[in-house]
Amino acid sequence: MTAADPCFLTIAEAASLISEKRLSPVELTRAYLDRIERLNGRLHAYVRVLHDEALAGARAAEAEIVAGHYRGALHGIPIALKDIYDTAGVPTEGGSRLCLGRVPAEDATTTGLLKQAGTILLGKLTTWEFAIGGTAFDTPFPPARNPWNVEHDPAGSSSGSGSAVAAGLCAAAMGSDTGGSIRWPAAWCGLAGLKPTYGRVSRAGIMPLSFSLDHAGPLTWTVEDAAIMLQAIAGHDPRDPASSDAAVPDYRAVLARSELKGLRLGIARGMFERDSVASDEVRSAFDRAVEVLRGLGATISEVELPPPALYNATATLIARGEGFAIHEKTLRERPQDYGVLARDRLTIGAYIRASDLVQAMRRRRMLMDATAAAMAEVDAILLPTAPDPAPKLGEIAAYFGSERPPYMRPFNLTGQPALSLCNGFDGAGLPLSLQIVGHPFDEATVLRVGHAYERATEWRRRRPEIA
Amino acid sequence: MTAADPCFLTIAEAASLISEKRLSPVELTRAYLDRIERLNGRLHAYVRVLHDEALAGARAAEAEIVAGHYRGALHGIPIALKDIYDTAGVPTEGGSRLCLGRVPAEDATTTGLLKQAGTILLGKLTTWEFAIGGTAFDTPFPPARNPWNVEHDPAGSSSGSGSAVAAGLCAAAMGSDTGGSIRWPAAWCGLAGLKPTYGRVSRAGIMPLSFSLDHAGPLTWTVEDAAIMLQAIAGHDPRDPASSDAAVPDYRAVLARSELKGLRLGIARGMFERDSVASDEVRSAFDRAVEVLRGLGATISEVELPPPALYNATATLIARGEGFAIHEKTLRERPQDYGVLARDRLTIGAYIRASDLVQAMRRRRMLMDATAAAMAEVDAILLPTAPDPAPKLGEIAAYFGSERPPYMRPFNLTGQPALSLCNGFDGAGLPLSLQIVGHPFDEATVLRVGHAYERATEWRRRRPEIA
Repeated sequence: MTAADPCFLTIAEAASLISEKRLSPVELTRAYLDRIERLNGRLHAYVRVLHDEALAGARAAEAEIVAGHYRGALHGIPIALKDIYDTAGVPTEGGSRLCLGRVPAEDATTTGLLKQAGTILLGKLTTWEFAIGGTAFDTPFPPARNPWNVEHDPAGSSSGSGSAVAAGLCAAAMGSDTGGSIRWPAAWCGLAGLKPTYGRVSRAGIMPLSFSLDHAGPLTWTVEDAAIMLQAIAGHDPRDPASSDAAVPDYRAVLARSELKGLRLGIARGMFERDSVASDEVRSAFDRAVEVLRGLGATISEVELPPPALYNATATLIARGEGFAIHEKTLRERPQDYGVLARDRLTIGAYIRASDLVQAMRRRRMLMDATAAAMAEVDAILLPTAPDPAPKLGEIAAYFGSERPPYMRPFNLTGQPALSLCNGFDGAGLPLSLQIVGHPFDEATVLRVGHAYERATEWRRRRPEIA
Repeated sequence: MTAADPCFLTIAEAASLISEKRLSPVELTRAYLDRIERLNGRLHAYVRVLHDEALAGARAAEAEIVAGHYRGALHGIPIALKDIYDTAGVPTEGGSRLCLGRVPAEDATTTGLLKQAGTILLGKLTTWEFAIGGTAFDTPFPPARNPWNVEHDPAGSSSGSGSAVAAGLCAAAMGSDTGGSIRWPAAWCGLAGLKPTYGRVSRAGIMPLSFSLDHAGPLTWTVEDAAIMLQAIAGHDPRDPASSDAAVPDYRAVLARSELKGLRLGIARGMFERDSVASDEVRSAFDRAVEVLRGLGATISEVELPPPALYNATATLIARGEGFAIHEKTLRERPQDYGVLARDRLTIGAYIRASDLVQAMRRRRMLMDATAAAMAEVDAILLPTAPDPAPKLGEIAAYFGSERPPYMRPFNLTGQPALSLCNGFDGAGLPLSLQIVGHPFDEATVLRVGHAYERATEWRRRRPEIA
C-alpha cells in the first residue's frame, strides 16, 4: 500500500494512464482483486467478488484499447455496485434473506450504461437490507465497516459502497439515496457522494424502496470522478417513469474553471446551528470551508430554509407509505425472513392512510416551492452533511427519529442535486463533511463548487490505514 | 323565443355583431337576464343571478367598445360559472350547506381571465354538492333540470352549466371535470363540453375535489365557442401546482380547415360494444358519425384500449383518497351538513391506505403508457360519451358503480384532452353524444375534428323547447 499503489489512483488519473497505454486494465483489476482479498474479511464491503469475470472483462478491455478502440474515461476502470443494482446472471440479493439466490435476467439501466462505458465490474457491495434495514446483525450479510476505523459505522444504506471506495477496493461505486444513503456514507467515509436530481439518473432495475424519493448515484474519491461517473449514467430512460429528458451537459468541461468568481453560495445556517445542532468540530470545519470558497471568488450569503423537521416528517411518511406498498405481500407471507430493523421500518407504512399521503404530497410541493424561493438569489447552498463524524458500528441507529437528524433528507423530498464531500478530519482522524445543494438539474454547479473546493484543500491526499 | 332571439346566438355570432356594433352587450345581457327570470324557476340552472352587476358590466363593456377598445371575441359576452369557481365578493357555495354565505376575497384564476377577456358574469350555476354529491334532494339547492325534457337529468356535476347553456340562459358556462363532470352534462344536454389536458387550464380558486383528477373547462353550444373559451383560459398559472407552461396555440385558427384529410382517427370500439355496451341508438348514431368523419377525409381505424374497469377503479380510488384528504376535517366536525350522497362518497376515502394509493398511482402510470401506445398510430380516438341519453331526474345514480359506466373517466386518469359534442337525438328528442379524445396538449386536433363534424351535420340547428 504505497503511494504508487494503483488502487489509490483516481478514475481521472487511471484513465489518463490507461489511455496512454501506461497502465494495463488487467494489472489494475488484479491489484483491486488482491486488495479485496486482503481486506474484505475485515471490512465486509463486498458481498460477492466477481474475480474471474472481472479479469476476463479487463482482458477484453485491454484488447480493445490496444486495438485502438478506447471508449473514454471509464474504459478499463474497475468499479462495484451496491447489491440492489440488478446484474444479469449475477445474484442481486438486496442484503436480505428474502432474495438469497435471486439472479436477475437483465441489467439495471445504469449497470448496462457502465458496462457500455467500459468499466470492469469487480463485484457487488454490502447494503442495508432493502436499503432500509440499518446497520443490522440479524441478516445473512455482516455489516460493512468504516475503513478509517473498522470499529466505526460507515453509514448506509450504501454502506459497502462507502467502505469499498474509501478503502481502495474499487475506483468508484454506485449507491442509492432515498433519505441520504449515498451522502451519509460519503460523509462518514470521507468521499464524494452525489445524489443527482430526481429524474436525472434511471432507477430501472434497482430494487425500489420509495418510488418518489429513490435516487441513484456514484460514490468516488474525488468530485471529478463523480462527474465522470455521472456523465456515463445521466439521461432519459423510458424504463423509469420518473426519468427526465432534460439535456445532459458535459460535466467535466464545467470543472475546468477552478475559480468561483461570480458564483453565489448561500449558507443554510439555521439547519445546523439551531434546528439540528452540529458538533463543534463539524461547525468549525464548515466555517473554514466557507472561507476557502470565499477565497476562490464565491459570494457568500445566508439563506433560511423551512425547518428540517417539516421536510423529514413529510419524507418519512411518503417513504413509509411507498415502502409498504412495495413490500406488503412479502411482509405478510415471510415476515420472519426480514431483519427486525427493515421489518419494523417497513411495517409502519401499513398504518398510513391515503389521505395522509395526499396531504404529505401537498406539503412536499409547498416545501419545494419554499426551498426554491429561499434559493432564488443563490446558485447553490452549503451545509454539513451530517452533524457528527462516524460513531461506533451500529450507533447510527441513534440518528433515526432523533432531535439531531443529519441534513440530507430535505433534498430527497425536493429532488435537488446534492453532493457530499470530505471536509477534513476530526481529532480521531475520522472524516468530516460538507454538502453542496443545487437547483434542479444543475449538477454542473454543484460539481464545479465541490471540485474547486477539493483542489484548494489537502484532504484528498490522506488515505485510511486499515488496521 | 324566435330564431332571432339573441340568447340563441353562438359566441362567434354574437361577437361578430358586437364587434361591428350591430349588437349591444347591454341588450344581449338583458335578453339573457329576462330569459333566466322566465325559465330558471323550472330549470334551477342558476343558484344566484347577478342582475345589476351584469348590467353594469355590460354597460361598461359597451362603453369600451364604442370608444374603440374592443378586446376580442369574448368582449361583452354573457357567461356563467359553476358555483365552485371563486368570484371575489360574490358568494361561492359549492352546492353545500357547509358553504352558505361563503364569500371569497379573490377570483379564481379562470374567473379573472374571463373578466379580462371582457365577459359579463350573469351568475353562478347549480353544482352537485362539492362536485361529487350527485343529483341530490337533501341540500339547500334544488337539482338542475334538463332543458330537453325537464323531467330528465342534465347529468353533473356541472349540472347547472349544462342546463343553462342548453336552455339559452348564457352564451357559455364553466364547469369542472373530475370523472366526466363537464362531458356528461354536455352529452345529456346536447352541448360541446371540453375537458382540456391536465395542466392546460388553472384550477386555482376552484373548490378542489381530487387534486390529480380535477380539470376546468367550458360548456358551449358549438365547438368553435369552446375554442374561443379555451383560448381565454389556457396557460400557465403559478397558483396551480399542476399547471403546465406548454405553449398555447391559436385554437380558432386551427378550425379554419373543415376538411380532415390526412387525419387518423381510431375507434375505441371495445369500450362501448364489449366492456360497457352502449344502447342501440347511441351505437348507430356513433356509426353514422364515423361515416361523416370518413367523408370529410379522415382515415378510420380501430384501437384497443385497456378495460374501462381498470381505469375506473384506479381513478375512483385516487379520487376518494384525495377527496377525503380535502374534506376530512369538515366530515368530522359537521357531518350532518353534508347531503347523504356527498358524505357517503367522500367518507369511503377514510378507509383507503397509503399503500393502496401508491399502487393506484403506479397503475395510473401504466394505463397512461398503455393508452399512449394504443394511440401511437392515430391523432385522436372516437367513442360515445355516455352509453344512453338522459334518464329521469336522479336516475343518473344507477350509473355509479354499474356494469355500464360512461366513457369519460379513463381520460381524467390519463389527463388527455377530451371533447363531448352533440351527435343527434334519440326518438324522444334527447341528445346523443360523441366524444373525441386527443394526445396530451393537442386540444387543437380535438377541436378541429369536432368543429368539422358539427359543420357537416344539422344538430346545432335544433334548440330545446322548454315545457
